[in-house]
Amino acid sequence: MEHFSDRLAASITARRSLLCVGLDPVLERMPPALAEKHRRAAAASEDEAVAACFAEFCAGVIEAVAGTAACVKPQAAFFEQYGAAGWRALTETVARARAHDLPVILDVKRGDIASTGVAYRRAAFGGAPGFAAPVAGVDADALTVSPYLGDDALTPFVEACAEGRGVFVLVRTSNPGAGMLQELDVGGRPLYLHVADAVARLGAACVGEQGYSDVGAVVGATAPAALRAVRAVLPHAFLLVPGVGAQGGATEALGELMVGDAAGLVINASRSIIYAWQEGDADYRRAAAEAAESLRRELGPPA
Amino acid sequence: MEHFSDRLAASITARRSLLCVGLDPVLERMPPALAEKHRRAAAASEDEAVAACFAEFCAGVIEAVAGTAACVKPQAAFFEQYGAAGWRALTETVARARAHDLPVILDVKRGDIASTGVAYRRAAFGGAPGFAAPVAGVDADALTVSPYLGDDALTPFVEACAEGRGVFVLVRTSNPGAGMLQELDVGGRPLYLHVADAVARLGAACVGEQGYSDVGAVVGATAPAALRAVRAVLPHAFLLVPGVGAQGGATEALGELMVGDAAGLVINASRSIIYAWQEGDADYRRAAAEAAESLRRELGPPA
Repeated sequence: MEHFSDRLAASITARRSLLCVGLDPVLERMPPALAEKHRRAAAASEDEAVAACFAEFCAGVIEAVAGTAACVKPQAAFFEQYGAAGWRALTETVARARAHDLPVILDVKRGDIASTGVAYRRAAFGGAPGFAAPVAGVDADALTVSPYLGDDALTPFVEACAEGRGVFVLVRTSNPGAGMLQELDVGGRPLYLHVADAVARLGAACVGEQGYSDVGAVVGATAPAALRAVRAVLPHAFLLVPGVGAQGGATEALGELMVGDAAGLVINASRSIIYAWQEGDADYRRAAAEAAESLRRELGPPA
Repeated sequence: MEHFSDRLAASITARRSLLCVGLDPVLERMPPALAEKHRRAAAASEDEAVAACFAEFCAGVIEAVAGTAACVKPQAAFFEQYGAAGWRALTETVARARAHDLPVILDVKRGDIASTGVAYRRAAFGGAPGFAAPVAGVDADALTVSPYLGDDALTPFVEACAEGRGVFVLVRTSNPGAGMLQELDVGGRPLYLHVADAVARLGAACVGEQGYSDVGAVVGATAPAALRAVRAVLPHAFLLVPGVGAQGGATEALGELMVGDAAGLVINASRSIIYAWQEGDADYRRAAAEAAESLRRELGPPA
């Protein structure tokens, strides 16, 4: 069994890239020719038409960034709003990325009591019982999880690391209100560092051959001090860093957070890559490829 | 526009019931005749076959408890593990409950940055843009949300209260590890009470004619002291109380938590109701109806 962390590290070094491309499809920003094609197609329903448009758009973006991005991160919410059709488009998008050997981090931020957590694990990674055989689920490489319910809610996901999957626990998020709970003082340290402690504890038994744990942490680029503090607690974890680009986080200070040959770090950008066509290039794939390559260079190579 | 809290209060008083029936379908516990029927059916895939079985099972349970339960709470995870087919079964289940005038609390525990939160809101309540018209989504009455990302992540859901929907924020959950974060001491009070403060603040502008807010709180029956402390902070909120039955929480001390004519309280039981047939009655609907009526009496009527 190959560790998720080894697959991600191999992708980072092979592509010399710390870039994670977020796949956040919204109808208002679909390229006009693509939208028009699906508007006119005889889909069974509005949901089917939009979902088909999203699937084609995401496939185009994936193909465009497959050489430049270390991984991709589809955001489940944008697909879920189109119901079953959206869920199918999400599953197709994940398969498309994996066909390009791009590790897929499914951004779902799930978290529930243990028996329910097992069901969410199966939704992301497969294994739900069928009448004749288990079903495949979305079949992502990793997923994001929310820690509010505590250790036992994280455990069902951590267990999947033994089967080659990965987990990113929300530690310090990139949104303006993140501090409301996450920065509260608990015994002289902010709450988010107590979550980082749990990530360290849960991830200690899931370290791959490259020295990284399969249990990583989400830490926003909008909180540079938090990034340094979390790295101090988690020297072996992959950090998934959202919040650059549209959310305003800076990339300058990332160098000091890098650990090992594959940096132990991926930086997510979504809208600034996938909607780069809105800056003037009629070909959304070319625009995405160029924006991804530009950000890849700005982030610098690993090690 | 009728407030969610007024619809829920009306259901509680009309049915003289504080019972919320949780819909947590798992294949291993489907009644044998029902499972056999769907195993033999020529469904397109394993996912379709299991999802069809779940949809029929949930429809049967809903019909059986429609006179005894104040509301139902489908757990999204159990449907999601069967992909697009599972999502369709979830949507059908919600529609079936609403056709019986049973308010539906969609248990999804979502929580993300604001732009993503809007997409999750649309997934639950409808309104995602289509090419010609908005799409309907799951169309639940209310949903559960996780507070780890802070106020601005809750706001997209609270905004839906102006359109007749409801929100239940996780405050103190029922699982064994809940205390890891939720009980941490923050300035002399446990963290979960700081979350309750946020619920009070966010819910103050969403109070219905019966005096209850559309923004409620999830507080586990396994933590009776937390229930009292949360009620003190949230005198006008509906409390959604999981953890009785299979999870071991007691029902004795609930009386002191009741507020107003409709108690401001619903008690969730899932497995002890929907799998009551495993205690010996071959008809799962009759077994569910009897278990629901028995728990309804044990919980006592409102006011």
